[in-house]
Amino acid sequence: MEKSTRPVSRFPVPEIASLPEDVRSRILAVQEKSGFVPNVFLTLAHRPAEFRAFFAYHDALMEKEGGLTKAEREMIVVATSGANQCQYCVVAHGAILRIRAKDPRVADQVAVNYRKADITARQKALLDFAMKVSRQSEAISDGDFEGMRAAGFSDEDIWDAGAIAALFALSNRMANLTSMRPNDEFYLLGRVPKESAPR
Amino acid sequence: MEKSTRPVSRFPVPEIASLPEDVRSRILAVQEKSGFVPNVFLTLAHRPAEFRAFFAYHDALMEKEGGLTKAEREMIVVATSGANQCQYCVVAHGAILRIRAKDPRVADQVAVNYRKADITARQKALLDFAMKVSRQSEAISDGDFEGMRAAGFSDEDIWDAGAIAALFALSNRMANLTSMRPNDEFYLLGRVPKESAPR
Amino acid sequence: MEKSTRPVSRFPVPEIASLPEDVRSRILAVQEKSGFVPNVFLTLAHRPAEFRAFFAYHDALMEKEGGLTKAEREMIVVATSGANQCQYCVVAHGAILRIRAKDPRVADQVAVNYRKADITARQKALLDFAMKVSRQSEAISDGDFEGMRAAGFSDEDIWDAGAIAALFALSNRMANLTSMRPNDEFYLLGRVPKESAPR
Amino acid sequence: MEKSTRPVSRFPVPEIASLPEDVRSRILAVQEKSGFVPNVFLTLAHRPAEFRAFFAYHDALMEKEGGLTKAEREMIVVATSGANQCQYCVVAHGAILRIRAKDPRVADQVAVNYRKADITARQKALLDFAMKVSRQSEAISDGDFEGMRAAGFSDEDIWDAGAIAALFALSNRMANLTSMRPNDEFYLLGRVPKESAPR
Amino acid sequence: MEKSTRPVSRFPVPEIASLPEDVRSRILAVQEKSGFVPNVFLTLAHRPAEFRAFFAYHDALMEKEGGLTKAEREMIVVATSGANQCQYCVVAHGAILRIRAKDPRVADQVAVNYRKADITARQKALLDFAMKVSRQSEAISDGDFEGMRAAGFSDEDIWDAGAIAALFALSNRMANLTSMRPNDEFYLLGRVPKESAPR
Amino acid sequence: MEKSTRPVSRFPVPEIASLPEDVRSRILAVQEKSGFVPNVFLTLAHRPAEFRAFFAYHDALMEKEGGLTKAEREMIVVATSGANQCQYCVVAHGAILRIRAKDPRVADQVAVNYRKADITARQKALLDFAMKVSRQSEAISDGDFEGMRAAGFSDEDIWDAGAIAALFALSNRMANLTSMRPNDEFYLLGRVPKESAPR
Repeated sequence: MEKSTRPVSRFPVPEIASLPEDVRSRILAVQEKSGFVPNVFLTLAHRPAEFRAFFAYHDALMEKEGGLTKAEREMIVVATSGANQCQYCVVAHGAILRIRAKDPRVADQVAVNYRKADITARQKALLDFAMKVSRQSEAISDGDFEGMRAAGFSDEDIWDAGAIAALFALSNRMANLTSMRPNDEFYLLGRVPKESAPR
Repeated sequence: MEKSTRPVSRFPVPEIASLPEDVRSRILAVQEKSGFVPNVFLTLAHRPAEFRAFFAYHDALMEKEGGLTKAEREMIVVATSGANQCQYCVVAHGAILRIRAKDPRVADQVAVNYRKADITARQKALLDFAMKVSRQSEAISDGDFEGMRAAGFSDEDIWDAGAIAALFALSNRMANLTSMRPNDEFYLLGRVPKESAPR
Repeated sequence: MEKSTRPVSRFPVPEIASLPEDVRSRILAVQEKSGFVPNVFLTLAHRPAEFRAFFAYHDALMEKEGGLTKAEREMIVVATSGANQCQYCVVAHGAILRIRAKDPRVADQVAVNYRKADITARQKALLDFAMKVSRQSEAISDGDFEGMRAAGFSDEDIWDAGAIAALFALSNRMANLTSMRPNDEFYLLGRVPKESAPR
Repeated sequence: MEKSTRPVSRFPVPEIASLPEDVRSRILAVQEKSGFVPNVFLTLAHRPAEFRAFFAYHDALMEKEGGLTKAEREMIVVATSGANQCQYCVVAHGAILRIRAKDPRVADQVAVNYRKADITARQKALLDFAMKVSRQSEAISDGDFEGMRAAGFSDEDIWDAGAIAALFALSNRMANLTSMRPNDEFYLLGRVPKESAPR
Repeated sequence: MEKSTRPVSRFPVPEIASLPEDVRSRILAVQEKSGFVPNVFLTLAHRPAEFRAFFAYHDALMEKEGGLTKAEREMIVVATSGANQCQYCVVAHGAILRIRAKDPRVADQVAVNYRKADITARQKALLDFAMKVSRQSEAISDGDFEGMRAAGFSDEDIWDAGAIAALFALSNRMANLTSMRPNDEFYLLGRVPKESAPR
Repeated sequence: MEKSTRPVSRFPVPEIASLPEDVRSRILAVQEKSGFVPNVFLTLAHRPAEFRAFFAYHDALMEKEGGLTKAEREMIVVATSGANQCQYCVVAHGAILRIRAKDPRVADQVAVNYRKADITARQKALLDFAMKVSRQSEAISDGDFEGMRAAGFSDEDIWDAGAIAALFALSNRMANLTSMRPNDEFYLLGRVPKESAPR
């Protein structure tokens, strides 16, 4: 497979060595863990203060404990990023969703039309709510909260769902603004057993 | 990888053995070639007359000679099916596009946002036109034809592009009507060398 | 009444005599029956293979037996073609609807706003469903099927309704692509008793 | 042809004899001239003060001298009423347009898709502008005025075009609110020579 | 505060002294009462016949007795004008709403998102209905009427609500067409006790 | 003026004294400076980690040096929040915009329809771009960047504009999710000289 040659971002991408210590450490840690540096780190590193705020927000919502599983949080990211036509987020978080859900098909299904995905009724209710926050938040009503509670979600889960949709409303726009390129590695992650994936 | 258990279609799916000879032969031929029967064949076989018409139309546009490469025709299918949120068509034709284009990434890119895909300027012009036929055909104007000609397309190419978008406007609606399930096999096709794909 | 001079199609229109035998026969048969050749036949004859597939599909849905009356099938065509702003389909199938329904007013009503047309509650439920397939098929749900069944439709009727909407999603796009001109004859058909219609 | 039995309006329709003198006279005059009372007169007569204001506005725009022909003004009404899905206005003003333009086909064409109607380039520019006022007036810009001037319209013509679109934005909403029924007589007006129209 | 210098209208604004007697009187009366001449009077005075019809319509709906309070009528104007992005109507009628409702906050709330405004449930039902007439009148159904009756509105109230939305559909388009400038005076009206407002 | 009694947020609002030291300090500092605690601080304090990330992001974009004036940044917030129907953001940032721009009218104009606001051509180009990022970021193209450069903006300014639109895409959704109430104090800020504002 030929490597992508399209630029990582419309804006300058800094040398990792030139970055502030905390930004550089974060990047090296993710590289250590994943085997590559996802381009969102390189793109946002052009603005270290925004980099720090973005990943702090990300970790506060995606790494915390709570009623939503990590796979369910990624489903919110993939479904809303599909609706917002964000290539980077669908490809990168699609990979993470496949890994979190241990399911090679769910990400493609959720990205195109979550209503037809092989997910639970509870998860469809979750995505109905998150999609409304993403695409039509002005109409979120008490009825929508009651629907979520009826599907078994606590009020803290509802905040999580809405806040993840909100954070990726930001993230999708930054990726579209910068024309952020998805790393080649993401396309195959979670599709084949790790050892058989061609490197 | 666990097999999907969701029904192939909301409507009855006939036994292959019970089908009219020509329909059965077509299905057996595709099974012979691909190693499995794509679910669109089983779903539409519920109505043999419509089955025959659909595949005749399909072959007339997708198998003919002409100025559009086979990969370009599949790009039209994937881009418009993404916009129409047709899960079956994105997954199945995404696989075909990966194979035709010998590129494991292009289908995911085109399905989410063709404007950012790693394709040529000519191909972006082609997809601009096909998307307008798919989503806003009432506004197709002489100016759109001139734009296509300026990008190097003949009038016969323009017909091909528009007619493929039109045929998949039909196909997307049939897949959404029947809630057609994509075969498990499609998800990995064209992503890994054939021999390494897990069976 | 002056005759229209706008071209029949943006693409070449073949001489009937030059067409393959089966295409020519079909055209001569319709001319014999109607007294003129509807321009959709001439426009699509530019591509005989597509011509054959289109009319095979058309006949499979519009000429078959089933729970929907022929007038109800034409209502689906007229309502969805109005929403898709397809001039040829509204004018031509409006004429057929007037004849099938023996009602000179229903086509104009259905083309503009079927919710206010003088049709039955069952027919409004049918058009609600067909319009959703035409304009928003990604959201067709089990609830929509239950609604149709509650209105008295069988599952085969539901397929018919959805498939007609799907076929004319194709047809509307082909007519808008080719800028197909409605024949002058259609405008008055079904509005006045046959003998009094000016020729 | 059976007569329509659907109510003229969702609201009470007054007896003509019971109306204030000026309202009654206006109605009798139109009946004298047309041979029937268009239902918009009966529907709005439920509120005499609004009746007077509406027809005063109508006459100020539709009966005045100016650079737009009477047929062109009716084209604006028919095109915008089609886009607003107003059955009464399309059917009633379609009839008037056929008569004003002495053309039995133009109204059906303009109602469905004015971009494909057999009208002049100047008239298409006029309808582009009027449709923008009708559907997206928030974006009307100096550039739109320059486009109209380039197409040969004076500033007073531009006011006329915009104001007609604005008045029928009101009228379409009143017709949809009251579910105003088009009179049976409108459907055939302007389609056949007067003497041959069946009564 | 510097005075606005942008023109009152894209079209000529007549000298008050040059206007027909009835138009001039109306303008002088409003100036006497308000301390300034709202620009809608000057803009529409360019066309005295339309001026008379518009204000007759306005008074018939906004000054009449009825089940809707004057504040509720202004809420309809502000909410629908916000949705239609009409700067003049939001600023001018926002001021009137603040005065009528004796509430300095309600206009800003209703203009941005009436669903979150500090208004009664009855008023939210009223605005739901009026917004549907304004933005999607083609879908107004018997169910919408029943909803309004359940919220305590009479059929005459429903007419009032729908007709106000319809009149300001016209008014918003005229203001956007003419690029009507809101008078500086409106911005502060109803926000501070009259005596403390800076002049 | 009666005080608002609607809850500050749909979610629990913590006691300031109970908050982590850094969160409490930030809140007390803003209270010291403004004379009140804007409700966004109380609402987000329910989640201290998200609070920290949000205000870090906010400060990185709104408090930094750069080619956009502080008033221009607030214009972006007000215009995009109006389009997203976010009551809190329009009311609160409308106040800040009035103060930054030293103009009591600009916020109301920009919130309703920035195309008609009394701002410079450069600022309209800026808002065109920011609105596209906010509402249709999938279509941001090289042409949009060229348009911004032609209007005099550097690439760093373009990032700022896009990133502010992206951050408030998040913020608008959080405010709509939590039904965040604007503080009463915002409504009058920047409308009257500070000393004359009623407390």
